[in-house]
Amino acid sequence: MTDSPLDFAVIDSERAARTGYPEAVFCAGKTIGQAEAIITGMAEGGIPVLATRVQPPLADRIRARFPAARYDPLARTLTLGRCGDSPRGLVTVAAAGTSDLPAAREALNTAEFLGSRAELICDVGVAGIHRLFSRLEDIRKARVVIAAAGMEGALASVVAGLVRSPVIALPTSVGYGASFGGLAALLGMLNACAPGVSVVNIDNGYGAGYQAHLINLMGGDE
Amino acid sequence: MTDSPLDFAVIDSERAARTGYPEAVFCAGKTIGQAEAIITGMAEGGIPVLATRVQPPLADRIRARFPAARYDPLARTLTLGRCGDSPRGLVTVAAAGTSDLPAAREALNTAEFLGSRAELICDVGVAGIHRLFSRLEDIRKARVVIAAAGMEGALASVVAGLVRSPVIALPTSVGYGASFGGLAALLGMLNACAPGVSVVNIDNGYGAGYQAHLINLMGGDE
Amino acid sequence: MTDSPLDFAVIDSERAARTGYPEAVFCAGKTIGQAEAIITGMAEGGIPVLATRVQPPLADRIRARFPAARYDPLARTLTLGRCGDSPRGLVTVAAAGTSDLPAAREALNTAEFLGSRAELICDVGVAGIHRLFSRLEDIRKARVVIAAAGMEGALASVVAGLVRSPVIALPTSVGYGASFGGLAALLGMLNACAPGVSVVNIDNGYGAGYQAHLINLMGGDE
Amino acid sequence: MTDSPLDFAVIDSERAARTGYPEAVFCAGKTIGQAEAIITGMAEGGIPVLATRVQPPLADRIRARFPAARYDPLARTLTLGRCGDSPRGLVTVAAAGTSDLPAAREALNTAEFLGSRAELICDVGVAGIHRLFSRLEDIRKARVVIAAAGMEGALASVVAGLVRSPVIALPTSVGYGASFGGLAALLGMLNACAPGVSVVNIDNGYGAGYQAHLINLMGGDE
Amino acid sequence: MTDSPLDFAVIDSERAARTGYPEAVFCAGKTIGQAEAIITGMAEGGIPVLATRVQPPLADRIRARFPAARYDPLARTLTLGRCGDSPRGLVTVAAAGTSDLPAAREALNTAEFLGSRAELICDVGVAGIHRLFSRLEDIRKARVVIAAAGMEGALASVVAGLVRSPVIALPTSVGYGASFGGLAALLGMLNACAPGVSVVNIDNGYGAGYQAHLINLMGGDE
Amino acid sequence: MTDSPLDFAVIDSERAARTGYPEAVFCAGKTIGQAEAIITGMAEGGIPVLATRVQPPLADRIRARFPAARYDPLARTLTLGRCGDSPRGLVTVAAAGTSDLPAAREALNTAEFLGSRAELICDVGVAGIHRLFSRLEDIRKARVVIAAAGMEGALASVVAGLVRSPVIALPTSVGYGASFGGLAALLGMLNACAPGVSVVNIDNGYGAGYQAHLINLMGGDE
Amino acid sequence: MTDSPLDFAVIDSERAARTGYPEAVFCAGKTIGQAEAIITGMAEGGIPVLATRVQPPLADRIRARFPAARYDPLARTLTLGRCGDSPRGLVTVAAAGTSDLPAAREALNTAEFLGSRAELICDVGVAGIHRLFSRLEDIRKARVVIAAAGMEGALASVVAGLVRSPVIALPTSVGYGASFGGLAALLGMLNACAPGVSVVNIDNGYGAGYQAHLINLMGGDE
Amino acid sequence: MTDSPLDFAVIDSERAARTGYPEAVFCAGKTIGQAEAIITGMAEGGIPVLATRVQPPLADRIRARFPAARYDPLARTLTLGRCGDSPRGLVTVAAAGTSDLPAAREALNTAEFLGSRAELICDVGVAGIHRLFSRLEDIRKARVVIAAAGMEGALASVVAGLVRSPVIALPTSVGYGASFGGLAALLGMLNACAPGVSVVNIDNGYGAGYQAHLINLMGGDE
Repeated sequence: MTDSPLDFAVIDSERAARTGYPEAVFCAGKTIGQAEAIITGMAEGGIPVLATRVQPPLADRIRARFPAARYDPLARTLTLGRCGDSPRGLVTVAAAGTSDLPAAREALNTAEFLGSRAELICDVGVAGIHRLFSRLEDIRKARVVIAAAGMEGALASVVAGLVRSPVIALPTSVGYGASFGGLAALLGMLNACAPGVSVVNIDNGYGAGYQAHLINLMGGDE
Repeated sequence: MTDSPLDFAVIDSERAARTGYPEAVFCAGKTIGQAEAIITGMAEGGIPVLATRVQPPLADRIRARFPAARYDPLARTLTLGRCGDSPRGLVTVAAAGTSDLPAAREALNTAEFLGSRAELICDVGVAGIHRLFSRLEDIRKARVVIAAAGMEGALASVVAGLVRSPVIALPTSVGYGASFGGLAALLGMLNACAPGVSVVNIDNGYGAGYQAHLINLMGGDE
Repeated sequence: MTDSPLDFAVIDSERAARTGYPEAVFCAGKTIGQAEAIITGMAEGGIPVLATRVQPPLADRIRARFPAARYDPLARTLTLGRCGDSPRGLVTVAAAGTSDLPAAREALNTAEFLGSRAELICDVGVAGIHRLFSRLEDIRKARVVIAAAGMEGALASVVAGLVRSPVIALPTSVGYGASFGGLAALLGMLNACAPGVSVVNIDNGYGAGYQAHLINLMGGDE
Repeated sequence: MTDSPLDFAVIDSERAARTGYPEAVFCAGKTIGQAEAIITGMAEGGIPVLATRVQPPLADRIRARFPAARYDPLARTLTLGRCGDSPRGLVTVAAAGTSDLPAAREALNTAEFLGSRAELICDVGVAGIHRLFSRLEDIRKARVVIAAAGMEGALASVVAGLVRSPVIALPTSVGYGASFGGLAALLGMLNACAPGVSVVNIDNGYGAGYQAHLINLMGGDE
Repeated sequence: MTDSPLDFAVIDSERAARTGYPEAVFCAGKTIGQAEAIITGMAEGGIPVLATRVQPPLADRIRARFPAARYDPLARTLTLGRCGDSPRGLVTVAAAGTSDLPAAREALNTAEFLGSRAELICDVGVAGIHRLFSRLEDIRKARVVIAAAGMEGALASVVAGLVRSPVIALPTSVGYGASFGGLAALLGMLNACAPGVSVVNIDNGYGAGYQAHLINLMGGDE
Repeated sequence: MTDSPLDFAVIDSERAARTGYPEAVFCAGKTIGQAEAIITGMAEGGIPVLATRVQPPLADRIRARFPAARYDPLARTLTLGRCGDSPRGLVTVAAAGTSDLPAAREALNTAEFLGSRAELICDVGVAGIHRLFSRLEDIRKARVVIAAAGMEGALASVVAGLVRSPVIALPTSVGYGASFGGLAALLGMLNACAPGVSVVNIDNGYGAGYQAHLINLMGGDE
Repeated sequence: MTDSPLDFAVIDSERAARTGYPEAVFCAGKTIGQAEAIITGMAEGGIPVLATRVQPPLADRIRARFPAARYDPLARTLTLGRCGDSPRGLVTVAAAGTSDLPAAREALNTAEFLGSRAELICDVGVAGIHRLFSRLEDIRKARVVIAAAGMEGALASVVAGLVRSPVIALPTSVGYGASFGGLAALLGMLNACAPGVSVVNIDNGYGAGYQAHLINLMGGDE
Repeated sequence: MTDSPLDFAVIDSERAARTGYPEAVFCAGKTIGQAEAIITGMAEGGIPVLATRVQPPLADRIRARFPAARYDPLARTLTLGRCGDSPRGLVTVAAAGTSDLPAAREALNTAEFLGSRAELICDVGVAGIHRLFSRLEDIRKARVVIAAAGMEGALASVVAGLVRSPVIALPTSVGYGASFGGLAALLGMLNACAPGVSVVNIDNGYGAGYQAHLINLMGGDE
């Protein structure tokens, strides 16, 4: 199967062969028509689809055509099919607070779409650190932890000091004025005083979930 | 006693009456001669002196003239006399790491100069959170806690979630590239997810110690 | 009473035991449904509620269920109950101008919710410094002063040079283009040339009021 | 007289005719040899010289050749001759603190070089506002006030609320970490809550003195 | 006449005595009700009113009550009365392009409100420098020039190199992405290579007009 | 023909003589009425029109009056006439992804309006570099390449290392949080490790197309 | 074995039990005496030592005491012992250019110290993409790739589009002016258009090597 | 000839075939030994060498070995041989002031090394615009103009409005505080109000000269 050109996009149908997975459809900045055409093209080509930043009207149009599509309005992800389903290790998404859920769930849904088992643990921000400790055993079961937090993003540092697995830090745009749209959390996570942390873009749950899945994959089946 | 004008400075000798304390001498950006003249003028006027950002050559000149002056080369503070010595509550400076000591000790020395009892607890950064917990009872004895940290500055958030006293966050310029001279820690502390935190300027141990002392003063003698 | 898990939030019901006060509900970034569930859960658990950044539709739904809830549309705070009511010292919020009132009133309402006596003094910006001086005796009665200002935020420096109590600086996002959403006031306040100032996040009236109350508490009952 | 080309510079000898004054020689970024050649060329062409950012070695070479040259090592200005000497109004430079003197004196020397009467009033920062008030009558005598301050730069706002003359705000690079080399003072002054303030570049005493002189000139001889 | 307190504002009725002019009403960030009350209070107290950032609904309410009020929808200024009307020199506002007119007209209206004669010269941006030269004689008639420009803000530098009068640079938020809301023009104007330029905040036509009027006033009546 | 003044704009009708081309009408920040009047004035004066950032209502009004006008809703450009039509070399616009098309098509339409032959090659971002290589022969046919990309903007570096022609880098505002409105792509392109790249403003397709056409023109007719 | 307190540091001797590895000694901001005491304390306690940002004088002192210490002057790392030596997968560090070697070698040395097999592939920047392709088979052998690059940091995006393993992006401070000390590369890597990339702090080779080793560990022994 | 690997660098000897020119050696961040080895390797392989950011000690070592090497200490460039010498059009570098010469001469030397005829016109900054006009006929002779300027960088806009050829804008790090190391000039040039401008990195004379040469090449021999 070769790349199928639309006049505004080229579906990279060989991507799975090259990197293991199909590309996701990032819908921000695309018109509904463009996004629909790309998703439809992939779906009809038998490629599993993960679309991110999907607004409800687009979701409605896709689900009208493909009733099997699942839409998570909080995460704004839409999926059609799944890339695999192997009994691997666990990806755990630890979210500091309720307001971090959109990014955290985008990460969760991405890891699951790619084939990982994944869990979400919510409201374990460091302001009430006993909540984090009360879930620590669960978090330690993960092969990779995604730490999603806005504000100062301290969750990544604290978790990385407590677990043996790699931590993917996912800064979110949650916060008062001087969070500057997530910049404070981003810088905080990049400067994490604990090693074992690497960082993705602000609110980029997709990137966090993808990287976590690749790492999870390292471990082979259990 | 009235303000005594030099041609480049006016010693605010009424400041103690107005706000309770004499002004400190911030030596960065002043020539050695200017700083020496101001310190000498205050000392000869019987005003207790706290000078900050004092380089060794200036310290040598002051101590040659005033042998009672104490110089802390790590904190770069020089003091002559003390503002009071009353049996008040405790100001505790919790420093994340050894590299944060210059700012932390400037804070410690300032609080002591102004009349507080003060203690320094070092190396309680959140990367090894058990070190923080092992000192928590000590930290909880303080009427005010100064949390000094560079990198992501998460210490302020974590401490504020664990104590009942107000926390003064003191960001330091310690860190790798994207700490941007302390900006990451500053933003992190301003965005602390726990309430009960207020922040001073990067590496401004003087400001942290002064504010902590004012708060300590609230409580009266024990 | 243990933490009561919702699927998207964990109410930290032990927080009062640990730090003295229940956590506030920061409603920005939460859906109305999430915020309503959290507030309801707390209220039904007998925990006093302070919710911030509350839009009118959420306020309407809460007040329909809990007629005793009070909503301040300017401050966007909603309160249900109060944490205490002890005859302590006074927290005074000095606001530079009318446009600073949303943040200033959030601070005022927070301090009162937590149990402090609190007063608001408006329109004492330094452009007309006689207005500040005409209220100086009132401001000096406070045990803690919150200085709320946008633009260049000079109010914090000037007040701190005139009073003996600690000043909590609350930068607001008020201003022309190069205020950059409050950044100018924030930097100005962090660089206050007078000591005795510490700073909270832009427009974070909640943080200012909380910190002021903790300091007020230092002084015990009068 | 026409422009006299060196191979690395063109002396704009018609500038006086066009804008009233010769151009200054900004020595930062020029080699000593380049700066010396330009200054010499102007001096030999009978053009009064104002050179800024002059390091001592260059000053020594110029004064060896032109003994009448005056060098201010604090301001780092060197002047040879003067543009006029008319009995105009007064330019007053108000400096917040001793550390602001390099920029403040560059402004003072510039205004005097161009022909204004000029005065420097030092150490009137707003942290001790009574010092400012004690000099207010002197400041009000000026036809233009230059307010030089680092840190939060609040001096500009406060002075502008107290005088009828225009205020030229001169931010300096004095301050702790988050002054970011004068950015805090610059933003503070641009956001001055009092009207009647306009701002020049950080540490640009030359620009402040020049603008103040032009305004002073408006008023004609007294 | 004393300050008349509303519960959210204090009208500074002595400001005219102190600085020569009443304060303007900056309506951004105020509710319509607040702005209306302040304007009404001033108008009924016989104080001339200049309100800025006035949206049409507020303008409609003010004009319903005070038919003499004039509203400029492009500048978003509303005026009621005028501070003076003396035969002084000319303030000229030179605007680079049509998109700069909102800020430029705010400056124009402010200078006129305060009592200056003022003129607007439009579309003289440096991309077509012959347009600037064709109006140069007009611009040279001014006692003060306001140079309003977005994008790179080069107009200020070029004009200041061509006239003898002081130039007030007014950066506007006009431009493509990396103008960053006027930051590029602001920095450009602060770094103007020609002396005789001082700068006000982005889109702050009020500040530019006020400063220009103060300078114009220097010259006395013609 | 002389400049025809409107009261808010001066049409630079001599611009074609001076620089070779009429000026474009940048409609952002202009009212519909202003933009319409300028476009109409040019069209009636026989000047070819290129208007950018045209919203549909303005396009509708222009097309009602001038049915020959062409509007590209994705690029938001409107053109009336064309500057030339000579058989020159090719300008190729390489766009990283579908979301970059608005800027890429603005560039394409500009180059064509000015007289170049131009082509758009879409979806050749470096994440799937085989897509770029599969179009490399086409890209190498161009005399100038415009590389339009958001996110990290790596397309410019990679293309410049593969072709002999100059590359104009066009950063777009496409991306997750820390793209900061295109700043990441802009900085990436300015720091391109391959020489032969110069950069225009974020989303400034007009500037890219104009510069590419000027360069194309260098080569004369084929 | 318990934590052994110095007066300025607490050696976290339980860290290995908690997270698997001892902490590294970050020597920037520590005096030589402090760093020497910490390293000596760890070495004498039998803990393997990795010290980063080690200047030659400190290295000389350590090697005088511990001849087995190895110092890499380009990477500025000093190691004493090694944490393990198990036949795991390969960590490959791909460096864009020679100037990136200090950070790249810090990463390499860190991964080896922790027990990974590691290789460095140099000068594979995207400006000459054939150099990257000529090493691609080698790079594909790695279980984790560290992509070290300054300037625009495009190497991370391109590599991530070509391999199946996770990529740790290591931005370096190499570049011309607008690299802003590595900010351009950092933002570029955070915005990588290819998934499978996570990022560490600027020049933080230690963090990159640590994270890569943790991921390598996932895979177990081969 | 194949790539000759050193252990820290791979000389891209096929680059000339691929893009037309050998790569330059950027010496900042390389040790003297590394730079010397790379230059020697190229020279001995018969590849013409352009090295940038060369400090005098390195230049001395190269010239000791290769007496034909030419070193420009102001531009910090070293060249050995030249890429061509064809009678093409002219590249003109217009520099705003003497302080801009290091970057301007790096551009000049680069264009000449690559084979262009090139000229430098100095001190034509817009503060004295008659100096620019007096050289305009010379500037108009160029096929490409490089406009090198620091401070506000207005030269690019003004020149681009006056010539028909493309303008490469070269921002320099010259300026007072708020030039922020050339950021002001960079933003100014990116926001140039005249089309026909594209921009290279701050102080990147090499990039400007390279791009200008590529464009010059478009025109073929004259």
